[in-house]
Amino acid sequence: MKRRALVKEKRGPGAVLKELDIPTLGPKDILVQVKAAAICGTDIHIYEWDDWAAARVKPPMVFGHEFCGEVVQVGQNVTTVKPGDLVAGETHIPCGECYQCRTGDQHICQDMAILGVHTDGAFTDYLAIPEICTWRLCRDTDPEIGALYEPFGVAVHGVLRHNLASSSVVVFGCGPIGLFAISIAKTAGATQIFAVDLVEFRLDMAKKMGATVILNAAKDDVTTVIQECTGGVGADYVIELSGSPPAIKQGFNVLRNGGAVSLVGLPSEEVSLDLTKDIIYKEAKVFGSTGRHMFDTWYKTSALLETGMIDISQVITHRFKLSEYEEAFRVLVSEGREVGKVLLLP
Amino acid sequence: MKRRALVKEKRGPGAVLKELDIPTLGPKDILVQVKAAAICGTDIHIYEWDDWAAARVKPPMVFGHEFCGEVVQVGQNVTTVKPGDLVAGETHIPCGECYQCRTGDQHICQDMAILGVHTDGAFTDYLAIPEICTWRLCRDTDPEIGALYEPFGVAVHGVLRHNLASSSVVVFGCGPIGLFAISIAKTAGATQIFAVDLVEFRLDMAKKMGATVILNAAKDDVTTVIQECTGGVGADYVIELSGSPPAIKQGFNVLRNGGAVSLVGLPSEEVSLDLTKDIIYKEAKVFGSTGRHMFDTWYKTSALLETGMIDISQVITHRFKLSEYEEAFRVLVSEGREVGKVLLLP
Amino acid sequence: MKRRALVKEKRGPGAVLKELDIPTLGPKDILVQVKAAAICGTDIHIYEWDDWAAARVKPPMVFGHEFCGEVVQVGQNVTTVKPGDLVAGETHIPCGECYQCRTGDQHICQDMAILGVHTDGAFTDYLAIPEICTWRLCRDTDPEIGALYEPFGVAVHGVLRHNLASSSVVVFGCGPIGLFAISIAKTAGATQIFAVDLVEFRLDMAKKMGATVILNAAKDDVTTVIQECTGGVGADYVIELSGSPPAIKQGFNVLRNGGAVSLVGLPSEEVSLDLTKDIIYKEAKVFGSTGRHMFDTWYKTSALLETGMIDISQVITHRFKLSEYEEAFRVLVSEGREVGKVLLLP
Amino acid sequence: MKRRALVKEKRGPGAVLKELDIPTLGPKDILVQVKAAAICGTDIHIYEWDDWAAARVKPPMVFGHEFCGEVVQVGQNVTTVKPGDLVAGETHIPCGECYQCRTGDQHICQDMAILGVHTDGAFTDYLAIPEICTWRLCRDTDPEIGALYEPFGVAVHGVLRHNLASSSVVVFGCGPIGLFAISIAKTAGATQIFAVDLVEFRLDMAKKMGATVILNAAKDDVTTVIQECTGGVGADYVIELSGSPPAIKQGFNVLRNGGAVSLVGLPSEEVSLDLTKDIIYKEAKVFGSTGRHMFDTWYKTSALLETGMIDISQVITHRFKLSEYEEAFRVLVSEGREVGKVLLLP
Repeated sequence: MKRRALVKEKRGPGAVLKELDIPTLGPKDILVQVKAAAICGTDIHIYEWDDWAAARVKPPMVFGHEFCGEVVQVGQNVTTVKPGDLVAGETHIPCGECYQCRTGDQHICQDMAILGVHTDGAFTDYLAIPEICTWRLCRDTDPEIGALYEPFGVAVHGVLRHNLASSSVVVFGCGPIGLFAISIAKTAGATQIFAVDLVEFRLDMAKKMGATVILNAAKDDVTTVIQECTGGVGADYVIELSGSPPAIKQGFNVLRNGGAVSLVGLPSEEVSLDLTKDIIYKEAKVFGSTGRHMFDTWYKTSALLETGMIDISQVITHRFKLSEYEEAFRVLVSEGREVGKVLLLP
Repeated sequence: MKRRALVKEKRGPGAVLKELDIPTLGPKDILVQVKAAAICGTDIHIYEWDDWAAARVKPPMVFGHEFCGEVVQVGQNVTTVKPGDLVAGETHIPCGECYQCRTGDQHICQDMAILGVHTDGAFTDYLAIPEICTWRLCRDTDPEIGALYEPFGVAVHGVLRHNLASSSVVVFGCGPIGLFAISIAKTAGATQIFAVDLVEFRLDMAKKMGATVILNAAKDDVTTVIQECTGGVGADYVIELSGSPPAIKQGFNVLRNGGAVSLVGLPSEEVSLDLTKDIIYKEAKVFGSTGRHMFDTWYKTSALLETGMIDISQVITHRFKLSEYEEAFRVLVSEGREVGKVLLLP
Repeated sequence: MKRRALVKEKRGPGAVLKELDIPTLGPKDILVQVKAAAICGTDIHIYEWDDWAAARVKPPMVFGHEFCGEVVQVGQNVTTVKPGDLVAGETHIPCGECYQCRTGDQHICQDMAILGVHTDGAFTDYLAIPEICTWRLCRDTDPEIGALYEPFGVAVHGVLRHNLASSSVVVFGCGPIGLFAISIAKTAGATQIFAVDLVEFRLDMAKKMGATVILNAAKDDVTTVIQECTGGVGADYVIELSGSPPAIKQGFNVLRNGGAVSLVGLPSEEVSLDLTKDIIYKEAKVFGSTGRHMFDTWYKTSALLETGMIDISQVITHRFKLSEYEEAFRVLVSEGREVGKVLLLP
Repeated sequence: MKRRALVKEKRGPGAVLKELDIPTLGPKDILVQVKAAAICGTDIHIYEWDDWAAARVKPPMVFGHEFCGEVVQVGQNVTTVKPGDLVAGETHIPCGECYQCRTGDQHICQDMAILGVHTDGAFTDYLAIPEICTWRLCRDTDPEIGALYEPFGVAVHGVLRHNLASSSVVVFGCGPIGLFAISIAKTAGATQIFAVDLVEFRLDMAKKMGATVILNAAKDDVTTVIQECTGGVGADYVIELSGSPPAIKQGFNVLRNGGAVSLVGLPSEEVSLDLTKDIIYKEAKVFGSTGRHMFDTWYKTSALLETGMIDISQVITHRFKLSEYEEAFRVLVSEGREVGKVLLLP
């Protein structure tokens, strides 16, 4: 039996859709028929082959890691899912033996592999993955939403480490994860949610997802507005999803004394910070946040999405067939700032 | 100048409305013209003169402690409010010098006095209080709502020590503070909110305030329903507001392993618990919770009520003039289970 | 090949030493040659066959669960230990699939089995266990100390959830785990360590392990002494290891407002508590604590014992050969209050 | 009555010893006869008149803020100390009315004044201060130790926010506060304490205060040694007291995934950080830490120093009379790296 898969064949831009053998399953592996996949920023790095990708990815390799599918076969030692189950995909493949893995923090494993970066990924119709990369969904979950559990979980993990009820929060960066973060902050009872971005399209989405104040950093005086709206105190929390150095600096600037920051967006260069003023005198608390806490984040994600408390369907702006992958990536690269989440449907 | 005040004149049931002198202010005192007051369970103890009251209250004394009013005069060293300000009343009068007072926990002061229990209270038209007993409100706050900030704060303090977003919570006891707790849990993003009481009237109110499942402990199998609705895991959080021993025991019973309990309702007798099963093997976390954390709770209370995120007006079921106090207490004592919050308006 | 093992053959008091087959290993199992085992209170329950044992244990079964030994054989899927390794034994056998197991709290698994209670145990010379029940020790660890890692871990888990540095702590119950708790509190920088018991022998041991004040509850006015020594404030922390209802009540009594309690000792009956006074008005924080957090507690245990920061050898007061088990249990039952830890050496 | 005081008379280097009037006390003020004062890095900034000082200090002004003395007179509203009491000095003068002041964090007040920087300080024989700037000491405290409570408290606040028992910690910067931090980490049960500095004299002191490994960043491969000693995992905690950008970067480098950092030392310039690698992927937790938490830190400081658990007397390397101030500052400026704490005794 064969499968179709989007393959990064060699070191350089682009990818090709090929027919490959369906992998043989190990005793703890699972074969999933992919129902929907979504394109992440990471996939664009790989497709375009920038420095980040060149340093990590070893072609030939199938990429893609945000997906939802149906289990069609399981290895003999698999216990948590069975054929017929609908699953979303966890991307972390931890070693299981290091200090972090043995103390409840396998998502920051010292020897982590990432699905679709270090191992064959999800832009395919049949995907073989370790059991630990699956999360069982309700039978009636829309697979398009199921494919977004993974990035939604990144937002859950970054936002819900704080108790936002009755607080003010600033979200920098209104791409899909930023939009998710806003919806989570809204649901968690934040009384003021400031959304900051440079693109009007994204700020409009931010408003729809629950932001109480939207700020275009290119036009608005972000610091002054936030200071005024918080009575001169500053914001209780900052969720940093832009990865942009000026935004990060501004984040510390609008934080109140004693406030807390989640750093989630990945800067591609070093960031110069005034630690004395912005962190020490202010007693800021700064939390690096990566991926999803396994599997606490997944329980929370399911609770929020299955109950319908949060509706993320409007974040999906484009749907393509897997065979239309070139158009999908073209849209993301050329019109990326006017785009929400883009799906690839096998 | 004179004032009218509801006075517990002697040790025994009842109270009388009298004309008294308006007190002279000390340098850190404030004179408030009361706009609205609310009757608390404590006031019923004092009115009816039960053992609890007999052990604490020294007549003659004005009672009542939930109120909202306008500042009419301030002592020379007062800095946080000025005449014309609208204020709600903090009931704790801490010593300011003990370990707890000096480490940020004055609400559990070792030598606490309580307004309206140990010092003259709020069932009056003019009230003199220490500066620390005031919290400035937005100018346009409805005084009837302002009078409820104090008991609402009890719920804020008991509920928001937990991060409820995406969690299941059970609220035992649906009197006014229980109803407030439900509304706070809803706003804070709890995905399942079970409300337990014995009275249909209260359970109907609980539904309106945001409970997702209402359970009448006299008829429903509380444990079975909660276990089923949580997939056999049990509830993440229990907020105990009934003070009833059977409810407290049931609370531990429905809690999941590793879950957390806020004990807020005051049992009037000892409670017998199976610590091994209910707390130790389960690794329950139990938090006693009393009053309001000063002034963190007040900032949170204002944020939730001023933004309109929570509407508590429907909890007010009766309004009486101060002179109609006998009818007000009669309603509470005889029809108490079909009553929400009762106001006394000077 | 055969092994000797102490077997509870039938429902009733006593046990017999028998020759049994060495079990066949599954792919995730490990065969350990036991170097030293220690007798726990649980083993006495099983030996004497009280109600607790009758409700849980299904003869015939080998019992015992505190041990240290050398790995002699491993199943094909075992990755964390290899033949020749010295290991201590984790007693929890979690299901791996429930909410707690999947969120970092497998020690409070909803479907837990206990080594030596539900499955064959460690009073033997060759023991087959799941990989998850082993913790690799430094090569040069004294096996007698290695056998105490498990109960020492119970103390680590109960004590180090609090940050004791510069604080006052009261330890109720000075059996072996209480003595371990005292030594841990000492090492963690507690400035005052009150040890409470009824037996002078144990209180003498408590003094040696680092208690600053020893109190015989049969003679001393525990509450008054602790209040005086803490300037009337009360103790910051209580570690409850006695399981005795009067001690538990006294523990809440000596706790300061806002203090925290670890409940570790298992009461065999319900305990009646004045929740209003002892927990709610006081805002006590109460933490049930059972077993060891896997494997955070083990890392901490190794760090404390391998560095020699804590010397627990003096807690061992008796050593017997496995064949002398009747004398070992006789000593524990009849002279138990003058006994520290008793070892069974194969 | 007159007093002698070290006065920064005009904008520029140096200071003069002058005779001044003893200030009149306000109702919440206290007059202290200084028994011992200590020179802080801040005082060197003021004495030498660098940019930091020029931006903050308004001559003429008495400087100095680390002191111990006897209360000789109190204003009419003072309640916590009385004449004859021995006191150490808290340096923070918070506004009492901002969000932080009203929620238990007055040490990060939005409108803070600092004793000896914004108001007249402690290099004098008679000092008038607000009541909030005093902490009562045991009658028999050595005033030379009493003068070090303030900087010792900075270390307590930065170190004890973490629970160090059984953990590894790296202290960067072995000036007096770094040495205090090492002694606190030792007392709190850290199993590995790495001390990093560039000066052998300080590293020798670090060893005496309890460091288990001393590392000269100019000669030793700090990262490699710490990685090796922690089994390749990295350190659990970093306490940054150097304020040096390369040390700060190295601190993040040696931190384990999921570890925590206290930033205490004040960099005088921006620091460029690789947030992606050092904080986000690693999920580092970073805590700015400034001054002392009022008054929690003071209770902890007293508990550690009064019990004799920590002996900081050896950190004092020089004592001068107030009149010898020029020599005292000369020693600090010219031989500063071979100097511990320098006292000025009136």
